[in-house]
Amino acid sequence: MSTISRENKVFTVMVNFQCEPAEQAILVEALKISAPHFSNQKGFVSQNIHRSLDGTTVVSYLQWKSEKDHEACLSSPELMESGTDLIALMEKGKATMQVMPYEIVYTAEARGY
Amino acid sequence: MSTISRENKVFTVMVNFQCEPAEQAILVEALKISAPHFSNQKGFVSQNIHRSLDGTTVVSYLQWKSEKDHEACLSSPELMESGTDLIALMEKGKATMQVMPYEIVYTAEARGY
Repeated sequence: MSTISRENKVFTVMVNFQCEPAEQAILVEALKISAPHFSNQKGFVSQNIHRSLDGTTVVSYLQWKSEKDHEACLSSPELMESGTDLIALMEKGKATMQVMPYEIVYTAEARGY
Repeated sequence: MSTISRENKVFTVMVNFQCEPAEQAILVEALKISAPHFSNQKGFVSQNIHRSLDGTTVVSYLQWKSEKDHEACLSSPELMESGTDLIALMEKGKATMQVMPYEIVYTAEARGY
């Protein structure tokens, strides 16, 4: 379980993958393979992989302790190695990736959640 | 505070807005104006508005009790009324919007979070 809140002292990053619906399951599996390597990075808080129901998009919602930890992750050779399946998909033109940091500007929730 | 988890019995939707960086603050304000109307919809669980640090994107991360509640929200006249500022931005070509439902396929978190 991960939490989203304006009060959270975390650095939020969404990695947005676009793909053909026929490739989405392969993309998700490639992300799952690299996932444990994210969890081992310094400053890792959480990762949630989301697949769009229409098959065209996968979003990895990541939280880090700090921007510095996110930056370090981007240049981690260990992560590059764990992402070879993913890189292969992108090199074949079957997926695109966009890494984007975010700030939470508004939070609302129903009672009891 | 909202929670993300594979075990959550919620229907997850991300609404992705693309904009010029000069328009991002206006877009965020327009979303904040419509936000209380989301909270009043049947089946609302949570909403978190994210602004990308590069200014080009705003993501509204929404959770509903069910897909039916999400669908009902899409056709709510009350929400349409609350979103006039947002619609005006899109009609002027200053923002685009994409509504996309997701399934969580992987969750990991560090201890203590």
